[in-house]
Formats: sequence, C-alpha cells, structure tokens
Amino acid sequence: MPILNKDMTLCISLAGRPSNIGTRFHNHLYDELGLNFIYKAFTTDDIEGAVRGVRALGIRGCSVSMPFKEAVIPLVDRLEESAAAIESVNTIVNDDGRLTASNTDYEAVANLIAEHSLDPAASVAVRGSGGMAKAVVAAFRGSGFDDVTVVARNGTSGGALADKYGFRYSADDPAPGTSVLVNVTPLGMRGADEEVLAFDREQIAAADVVFDVVAFPADTPLVRAGRDAGKRVISGAEVIALQAARQFERYTGVAITPEQVARASEFSRAE
Amino acid sequence: MPILNKDMTLCISLAGRPSNIGTRFHNHLYDELGLNFIYKAFTTDDIEGAVRGVRALGIRGCSVSMPFKEAVIPLVDRLEESAAAIESVNTIVNDDGRLTASNTDYEAVANLIAEHSLDPAASVAVRGSGGMAKAVVAAFRGSGFDDVTVVARNGTSGGALADKYGFRYSADDPAPGTSVLVNVTPLGMRGADEEVLAFDREQIAAADVVFDVVAFPADTPLVRAGRDAGKRVISGAEVIALQAARQFERYTGVAITPEQVARASEFSRAE
Repeated sequence: MPILNKDMTLCISLAGRPSNIGTRFHNHLYDELGLNFIYKAFTTDDIEGAVRGVRALGIRGCSVSMPFKEAVIPLVDRLEESAAAIESVNTIVNDDGRLTASNTDYEAVANLIAEHSLDPAASVAVRGSGGMAKAVVAAFRGSGFDDVTVVARNGTSGGALADKYGFRYSADDPAPGTSVLVNVTPLGMRGADEEVLAFDREQIAAADVVFDVVAFPADTPLVRAGRDAGKRVISGAEVIALQAARQFERYTGVAITPEQVARASEFSRAE
Repeated sequence: MPILNKDMTLCISLAGRPSNIGTRFHNHLYDELGLNFIYKAFTTDDIEGAVRGVRALGIRGCSVSMPFKEAVIPLVDRLEESAAAIESVNTIVNDDGRLTASNTDYEAVANLIAEHSLDPAASVAVRGSGGMAKAVVAAFRGSGFDDVTVVARNGTSGGALADKYGFRYSADDPAPGTSVLVNVTPLGMRGADEEVLAFDREQIAAADVVFDVVAFPADTPLVRAGRDAGKRVISGAEVIALQAARQFERYTGVAITPEQVARASEFSRAE
C-alpha cells in the first residue's frame, strides 16, 4: 500500500484533455529513485486561478499542454529562452513562489536532432503550423538548419511561422527529394486521422529521415512506413519521454539516465 | 508500488502547521475501501489563492485548520449550519465549482456527547475561548446543556463566547463539584505545556467526566489523570478521528463504520 505523507512535493499537469502518461511517467521515476514526490494530471476552466493555486499551494512543478501554452505566459514571473523565443510554455517551475516557464518540447526536439545526428545541411519539411510546430521549427533553426520548408494548409499561421525563422512556406507537399520529413499535425493520431499517412510513400522512399511528433500511438502509419522503408525514424514517443525527462530534472533537481527515461516511458504507456 | 493515475480525486488540507494525521487517515481509508482518491496536507500564505486553486483544479475536499477557519468564510458559496452558527469552518466540499463549508469539529463533539451519554442536566466547565472552544461550547448548547461555564483567562473572548450561548463566564477555576471538565486549551499538548494538567486533581476527583480536546499526544496529563481516577474519559484522539470521518464521508459519499474509523485513526498515529 502506498503510504503518502504530508511532506510530499506535488507536481501537476494542466491540459484541456489530460492523458495518463505524465502521471505514470513521473510517479514511476519518483518511486524508482525514492523521491518524496507525487504527480497528478489536472484540467481546468480557469487557467489564471489554477496558476494562482500553484503558487498558493506551493506546487513545485506544472506541465502545461494545449490549450494553455500561451495563456500562462502573462501569469509567470520569468520566461526562459526556450519559451520566450517561441512564445509557448510547456513547463513551469515554482521556486518558493517565483514561477519560471520554459519549453522542454523545444529542448527535446533539439536533443533528438543531435542524438540522431541529423545533418544541418539537409533539406527539411515540417508539416504543421500549430503550437508544437513552433517548437519544432525553432529547434531546427536553433540546430543550424537553413533549408526548411513549413508545409501547412493554413497560409496565415504557416507563412508567419516560416517567416519568423527565415524559412520557406508551402501550402502543398514538400519538394521531391526532401531529406527530413517531420509531421507535427494530428495525422496518424489515435482518435483523429488514425489511418492517414502524413507524407506519401514516394516522399518517404526519397527521404533519409522520418520524424513523427504524434505520440499516440507510438507506431503511427508514418513511423511504420518509415521503418518499412528502412529509414532513420524518430517517433513522438521519444519526444514526449524526453520532454518529460527534462521536466522531471527541473522539478526534482535529479538527473536521470537514458535507460531510466526509457523504462519510465515504457511503464507510462503500458496500461 | 503505488500506481497513481490522472483520474484520482484530490482532497487536501490547509493549515498553518500541517500534521501528518489527516494525510495518513484519509489515504488509509481510500486504500482500504478501494477508492480512486488521494489526500495531501498543504500550508499557504495566500488563503484566497489557495481556495481559488481548489476551485480551478477541481480539488474535491479541503480540510481547514488554524489560522484559516474564519478567513475562508467569505471565500465559499454556502455555509452549513454547523459552520454558520459558530462562524468557523473546518471543511469545504467542492461540488463542480460550488463550495459548501461546514464544521465537523462541532459535529464530532456533539456526536461524542451523545455516544458517551453525557447528561444534559450535568454541570460543565469548558476551559478555553479560541476557535475550537466555539465549536465545543456550541455543541454543548446544541445537545441541550444549560449549566455550562466558560473558563478562560481572556475575559473578552471568554465572556463573549459565554454570552453568545447564554452560559456563565469565569476567569478562575470551575466551581467545586463540576461534573464535566472539558479542556480546549493547549495545556498538555506536545511542544506546548506538555506536562501541565488542565484541571487540578481535586476537581478531577469530584468530576464524573473528563474531556480533553488536545489530540497530541492522545494520552495527555488530563486524560491519564482522568483514567487513573476511574472517570469516564473522552480524548482529543476521538475528536480528531470523528471529525475526519465526517469529512471523509462528505468528500467521498461513502459511509464508514466506527471500526474503520478506529483502524484509520490508529494507522494515522503510528509513525
């Protein structure tokens, strides 16, 4: 039986539609590392009140998901560069009432670009122009990439995102022979367009790397097609685990190994 | 290992100096009854923000201790009679954003007066005039007692409390031969006047019932002296367990037996 105690440090998440992943991921690591922490997901219809509650109750950390990533910006005391650059927050750390916001999605994508040794000279197509696409496009720019096309049906947000980082915008498919194909739309996501392949098979055949940010399921049609075609594949499961790991380290001050991240990620998905 | 999940209902406490009792009591019962609930104590320096956080995060229940019992009154939507009569709240229940406040200390004391079959015709001396003394004095009035003396060094609060319920006030010791002796001061409390007996041995010898509201330790000097003298004894451990049980039932909607209360109370104190 879990023996909870009054001194446990609480971390939470705020999302329009909470998943169980963060709650399982963080609590698994707290247990493995023997930390007196506890984590639970929340939703709210009063984001200002929720952040005030974070302060008033001394909640140590707060993961922020859609649709609150921009709304929390005026509610914190300081933005780290990762959040300020893209005007999007996914992490709040509370140091004795002082709230610092950051964006570990940005950090996770930048880390994965480095880990998978993507070539900054490669051509990249990023499909999508929402909040997460901002983090992805910024991470490619931050990693030294120049040849990036934002592919989005929404010309306003797509064009603005491309312009902001000096990249191209296209309403249509990526140019033939694009090396790195990145999906940051709900295409392939459970409950959305689950069976839809975000890039067509010819594009995949001509690419070197397939990168899907969709995390549920881990094996999207794009991930499967990339693997079948023998391409280097980066999955949304890696993104979500790595961004949660960076949050974990900020909240607890404890560094964790890639093996610990992998085990917690596997646990978080096994239900 | 505890497997926490996103759907757990959170209940909390707010106190200037939280103890571990509530956290252990409630979580023990959640576990025994298989309820998907979790409980944790908090403190705050912003009671208004904390109650706003209760609303915004959908926290189901909130136990309120010193020094917040009066401060929360303007922050809730409705006061039950138990809280309104004594202008003191120890429990908030959140029904989809609508906060109802009550006072289970009052209920617990009234329940114990009935359980231990105290005679409404008996003479009673209540030592103390703070927030908890209000609940105790009101409970004796609500239980039909007429012959009650409020004994308190503070003539202002003591006199006002006695006047409010049509009782007598005395700055000194209770009248000789008083039947029911009730301590609602910190006399005998751990870390306070731990070795001090709240009534002298002659008064105890002449009494029928000794009732100590101090809960830490369970065996105060007064409780021990009452037992040694063969008197009927009601302890603060009973009060705190019973008031927590009433909170538990309000938060969860699940009724619990006296045996379950006793086991959870024992667990909550064993650390």
